[in-house]
Amino acid sequence: MRIALGISYNGTAYEGWQSQLSRLTIQDKLEAALAKFTQSKISTLCAGRTDSGVHGLMQVVHFDTDTDREANSWVRGVNASLPTDIAVQWAKIVPSTFHCRASALTRRYAYVLLESAVRPSVEANRVGWVYRPLDEARMKSAAALLVGEHDFSSFRAAACQALSPIKTMKRIDILCRGEPQQRYWRFEFEANAFLHHMIRNIMGCLLMVGDGRQSPKWILDVLAKRDRDAAAPTFSPDGLYFLGPTYSPEWGIPDRTAAFDWLP
Amino acid sequence: MRIALGISYNGTAYEGWQSQLSRLTIQDKLEAALAKFTQSKISTLCAGRTDSGVHGLMQVVHFDTDTDREANSWVRGVNASLPTDIAVQWAKIVPSTFHCRASALTRRYAYVLLESAVRPSVEANRVGWVYRPLDEARMKSAAALLVGEHDFSSFRAAACQALSPIKTMKRIDILCRGEPQQRYWRFEFEANAFLHHMIRNIMGCLLMVGDGRQSPKWILDVLAKRDRDAAAPTFSPDGLYFLGPTYSPEWGIPDRTAAFDWLP
Repeated sequence: MRIALGISYNGTAYEGWQSQLSRLTIQDKLEAALAKFTQSKISTLCAGRTDSGVHGLMQVVHFDTDTDREANSWVRGVNASLPTDIAVQWAKIVPSTFHCRASALTRRYAYVLLESAVRPSVEANRVGWVYRPLDEARMKSAAALLVGEHDFSSFRAAACQALSPIKTMKRIDILCRGEPQQRYWRFEFEANAFLHHMIRNIMGCLLMVGDGRQSPKWILDVLAKRDRDAAAPTFSPDGLYFLGPTYSPEWGIPDRTAAFDWLP
Repeated sequence: MRIALGISYNGTAYEGWQSQLSRLTIQDKLEAALAKFTQSKISTLCAGRTDSGVHGLMQVVHFDTDTDREANSWVRGVNASLPTDIAVQWAKIVPSTFHCRASALTRRYAYVLLESAVRPSVEANRVGWVYRPLDEARMKSAAALLVGEHDFSSFRAAACQALSPIKTMKRIDILCRGEPQQRYWRFEFEANAFLHHMIRNIMGCLLMVGDGRQSPKWILDVLAKRDRDAAAPTFSPDGLYFLGPTYSPEWGIPDRTAAFDWLP
């Protein structure tokens, strides 16, 4: 049978999602816990690979197994063998036609940013940081130019394995709380799929617009050049959270976990 | 001259605030950074010592020094030598009559709690956790019985060095967001002063009331007994944040830092 799991993790201590020889990845920790629970080797697929230092609120994986257990038993049993910074949030027995990656309609990410003269401390590794004041209207203007179907080659890492650089950005929401020069920003992105480093590269550009180094319309030049050198440097992974994929309601996959709402 | 500093820290990696032979405390890290910046030994006093694993959003310290620098120079200079999970948020040159502990009118703490069938992961070490559903009205009734001047001996650790167990609780606010069985709670406490482990012991009791193991009025029995054995076990330090002291406005000490508002 096919099992889908929703996984939350703090990515700080890991070399990203995908299995490595070092075994220091979230996939390695998950598959070790699954092997212990099922007493067999389990290979998982995920909805969206995350980089080193990037966090996940609802990564979705699936795998096939002969182990026949109730959904809650999968949650408790696998969590018992996972490190404290990784947890299975839910488990669901799904039809074999469900595929965590191919069935996903969209992916959602949030970037949480501290704007302050002082670097993060309590929230070190969990928020990005800028010390220059940001202008909300400028960033919203620039972000609006990225919504829709575009060739995002300028925001694509050299190592990207995607078949096409053309993606459809459904929305970029920008929220902020606190007072100028000491406040938290939340950038939320939803697209059919993302290229490698795409959000961190977009974040670098939005921040150059927000702090006045570039105009909002500069984003159009960056897009048009289809050249990674046209965009800003890749921004820090610290504040990036994979909020999870979305699926057709027919699959009955949860839309979110409790942790979605507490991010600033 | 006398300098006051506001300090934020994630307490996970440290053996509490107060200096120890191990040097693995926040005070030790701060005083090492101050020694590097001033090229002299600096001894600090703090407004509220925090236990191992407890976090600080605005600890306030003061010390006397001959080093004559602008306030911003203290912030940047000391932060350059602090670990990434500790930061000076502000510095202020204060009159020698200011005393971070004696001048404090009240202390404020928050306890952040995850109520979920699944343990924390993204927020491991930074929130407490219960898996039993909590009843807001019951906990608010119990908390109201603790507001005012009371002998808090039942909530006092054996090691407590306070001169008197009688403290005045100004307020206990209980907020919650999310849906039943998967939500975040924030308990905020303000008192003239707190006894050692007092909030963690009160939290243990409020949770026994919230999950139905005790009635709200049981809190009156616990108070009346003035005996630590009457109360619940000391709850986890993970979700406890020292929000900071309050002072008379004449001192010009900041009331809060940006991080106050993002806690769930």
